[in-house]
Amino acid sequence: MLKYSSKLIADAVTEFTKLPGIGEKTALRLVIHLLKQDKEKVKQFGDVVTKMRHDIQYCKTCHNISDHELCSVCSNKMREQSIICVVENFRDVIAIENTEIFRGTYHVLGGIISPIDGIGPEQLNVESLLMRVKEQGVKEVLMALSPTIEGDTTVFYLSKRLQPFGITVTTIARGVAFGGELEYTDELTLARSIATRVPYENALVKSSTS
Amino acid sequence: MLKYSSKLIADAVTEFTKLPGIGEKTALRLVIHLLKQDKEKVKQFGDVVTKMRHDIQYCKTCHNISDHELCSVCSNKMREQSIICVVENFRDVIAIENTEIFRGTYHVLGGIISPIDGIGPEQLNVESLLMRVKEQGVKEVLMALSPTIEGDTTVFYLSKRLQPFGITVTTIARGVAFGGELEYTDELTLARSIATRVPYENALVKSSTS
Repeated sequence: MLKYSSKLIADAVTEFTKLPGIGEKTALRLVIHLLKQDKEKVKQFGDVVTKMRHDIQYCKTCHNISDHELCSVCSNKMREQSIICVVENFRDVIAIENTEIFRGTYHVLGGIISPIDGIGPEQLNVESLLMRVKEQGVKEVLMALSPTIEGDTTVFYLSKRLQPFGITVTTIARGVAFGGELEYTDELTLARSIATRVPYENALVKSSTS
Repeated sequence: MLKYSSKLIADAVTEFTKLPGIGEKTALRLVIHLLKQDKEKVKQFGDVVTKMRHDIQYCKTCHNISDHELCSVCSNKMREQSIICVVENFRDVIAIENTEIFRGTYHVLGGIISPIDGIGPEQLNVESLLMRVKEQGVKEVLMALSPTIEGDTTVFYLSKRLQPFGITVTTIARGVAFGGELEYTDELTLARSIATRVPYENALVKSSTS
């Protein structure tokens, strides 16, 4: 740690270096920037961050992070309650919301099944998902989990648990990414994208409406 | 701006993106990190930053940033009051303090003379420097300003103003940086370092004691 001749500066630098990817030089740069701002502006920065952590809660329906008891998606009457998109965490909700394509609701699992990390189904928000499917008139559950062994295991487990309800279980499409170059696509993805090839007309329809 | 489905998150991300070098993706990463921390930890972060900006003041003697009326250097009886190191800003004080070589006091100008930016001597802490030299029994003023045209102009101006007091005015040594490669050193620095070459014995003495 550098010497700062000011405890106020040193303390602020220390706080910033606790953030991921911020070293001491960067922290000092941020502190110097804040020193040049109005006191009120800096107070606002501190207050907004503190308030954010203090007031945030989890949606009692879908477990997404939320400002209120119900998140903005669950409380939106325009969203289709009959389709639930299952995701690992709230960052996935942000990613999907920003595509502006999905009009249903979400269910945040809070992780995926990973025996190596000691995470089993009982650590995840599974029972509340089954409860929603049972009581909410759900027609489709869309699995939007990472295409990894853990993600696939979780999808498999959930589809088994959802079987008794006789609803449609779907997963997001896998294949070569848009804008990706074929020669740099990994072999597994490329092989699967060939094995699960779709009629050209379907691909067109999908890219324009899904 | 991405959509966040939580105003608390969106506001916090906005505050972080106001910091230099932090884009929205990085801001979101920082916010997500803070969401995982205890409420108390995040409150401490906010409070420390707010307090830093609110409580910081300028040392009434040397104009360095300070926690009190006098900065930790000026209030330290072990520091030699007879030598003043003139710097542009408090970041230079931090840099020099961390060399642990300088035992005198500082004087922060608050800028350097730069006609193109409309900064003349009257915008800088010059009169207070002359006052200190007059009243404090100063024997040497060490100019530690950037080796630019503006820095050189400022040194020239200050040395003229200090002339009546009959004290020693020195500047930090200029030359090839330690660890720097000769072939990548700019021509001006290299040319000057040859023109101002020093006896080998002096160079040795300087590197061990200065």
